[in-house]
Amino acid sequence: MPEPSTRECDLIRWIRGQARTDGLVLVGIGDDAALVRTRDASTLITTDLVIEGVHFDRAVATPADAGWKALARNISDIAAMGGESTAAVVAAALPRGFARSDAEALVQGLLECANAFGIRLVGGDLAATPGPLVLAVTLLGDLRGRAPILRSGARPGDAILVTGTLGGSRLGKHLRFTPRQAAGLILASSYRPHAMIDISDGLARDLHHLLDESGVGATLWADRIPVSQDALRLAALYGRSPLDHALGDGEDYELLFAADPGTAERLLADQPLGVPVTQIGVITEAGAVLALPDGTERPLEPTGWEHIT
Amino acid sequence: MPEPSTRECDLIRWIRGQARTDGLVLVGIGDDAALVRTRDASTLITTDLVIEGVHFDRAVATPADAGWKALARNISDIAAMGGESTAAVVAAALPRGFARSDAEALVQGLLECANAFGIRLVGGDLAATPGPLVLAVTLLGDLRGRAPILRSGARPGDAILVTGTLGGSRLGKHLRFTPRQAAGLILASSYRPHAMIDISDGLARDLHHLLDESGVGATLWADRIPVSQDALRLAALYGRSPLDHALGDGEDYELLFAADPGTAERLLADQPLGVPVTQIGVITEAGAVLALPDGTERPLEPTGWEHIT
Repeated sequence: MPEPSTRECDLIRWIRGQARTDGLVLVGIGDDAALVRTRDASTLITTDLVIEGVHFDRAVATPADAGWKALARNISDIAAMGGESTAAVVAAALPRGFARSDAEALVQGLLECANAFGIRLVGGDLAATPGPLVLAVTLLGDLRGRAPILRSGARPGDAILVTGTLGGSRLGKHLRFTPRQAAGLILASSYRPHAMIDISDGLARDLHHLLDESGVGATLWADRIPVSQDALRLAALYGRSPLDHALGDGEDYELLFAADPGTAERLLADQPLGVPVTQIGVITEAGAVLALPDGTERPLEPTGWEHIT
Repeated sequence: MPEPSTRECDLIRWIRGQARTDGLVLVGIGDDAALVRTRDASTLITTDLVIEGVHFDRAVATPADAGWKALARNISDIAAMGGESTAAVVAAALPRGFARSDAEALVQGLLECANAFGIRLVGGDLAATPGPLVLAVTLLGDLRGRAPILRSGARPGDAILVTGTLGGSRLGKHLRFTPRQAAGLILASSYRPHAMIDISDGLARDLHHLLDESGVGATLWADRIPVSQDALRLAALYGRSPLDHALGDGEDYELLFAADPGTAERLLADQPLGVPVTQIGVITEAGAVLALPDGTERPLEPTGWEHIT
């Protein structure tokens, strides 16, 4: 029977004392459900899992890292809609024997991220599991009266742009990354991309998601893709090319978007996002290809780096 | 790296085809986040875990049962606020090797419940786990312009009432139960309880949650507590009293609430909830006691049946 232990009740009481609240939170932690104000009479909602041994390794990640990541992944999704994150709930399956101090560290990592992005923790559920740690954070977001930026709006002729640098996130970035909420809000308010997605599965795969939803194709310029230092490090270690890491590693949590050429020109000149923005290709009528520096092209497969030859 | 497998992408595509949508869903499954209309410029939100081996046993529960239960638990929470459930997202950690047919059955159980209660499935996340099946459903709800019914409003002199019958849910009710959304909405619109909670942890423990939040006490009448047939069956099998099962078993998913005596009288006479409603005691200034038929009283511990002597 799933009754919370005394320990779990204590932990919930402790969390309730830690969580910040404000006028947006009409009912917070401690009732059957929370009640959250929504400014637009609509709300964005997204949910993401973080599983021990899948999304992080307890040998290198602290519980606080796991807490940060579980929330930050969701912020990245809200940002990719052009939204501002507002309120979160967290369902945590804690391994039997999980130390109270680890549970507190996990919540502190989550709250550190929440506070950094103005998010209120308004509720959750805790249970003991015979398996690994599983965190499911659900996040609400606000569009500030604007239309959402979908995956489906890209048009032939659009520029394809990306924030930051790509590849090699497993060397550490995948844990304590900064989701691109600020950049997403600047794009949504002033540049209105036609389509946007965050890169969680990898540039190649997530671009395909955007292309599929928009019913278009793309040419990516191999020599313009911003390769991270970590991709270079991994390439030096394991012999794959830095480009393959940038295309397929995933968990970059950067924004990938399509905008009309004039808008792209302004963005590239102004660099207003607080993180570098780079044009990496163009939207075409159909097909997805990678244009190589030698003038040849190869198909851009929607797979991770393991499948790119 | 947590890239969805082709299998997972296929499954998401299949789910997208199954999920009903309507004008409340501005953006549904298939983007970075969903966008849901909120009628009151506020939204209820709750999240609950269902874990294999904790909340259900795969030897007796089907995947469809698990799906139903994962959503129904949350509906019960929204109902306990006086709300109507509107839209859900589901994060599912599926054991490695989990059959596609089982995954579909799970989603069908969840959608069966969603459709029975007018709820839209608007998004989710799927990942493979080395551990047991974990489902985290997050549910939004609407108050239809009314104030929420909190745990904290009970006053001395209030009647304590409960829907349905209690105890023995492990014999089957805990899986395919009917959350009391209809009863909750009738109460919220026409009877305005001072405080309400749903019984998931057990009558004794959940009453204590309500008393703690309200800063009051209670006298429960032992001979008025509606004992279920399943509690009688368990008592006959294992030698504990039916009352102890009703007090401590949990997972009844009935509504427990406090209302002023006049309202209680109307409710008891009218029986308008579509499920029997019973008065089981009164709110007092402080302390929690169980009044026994022989005229004696004993302390009502906030624990499950194992701890009641």
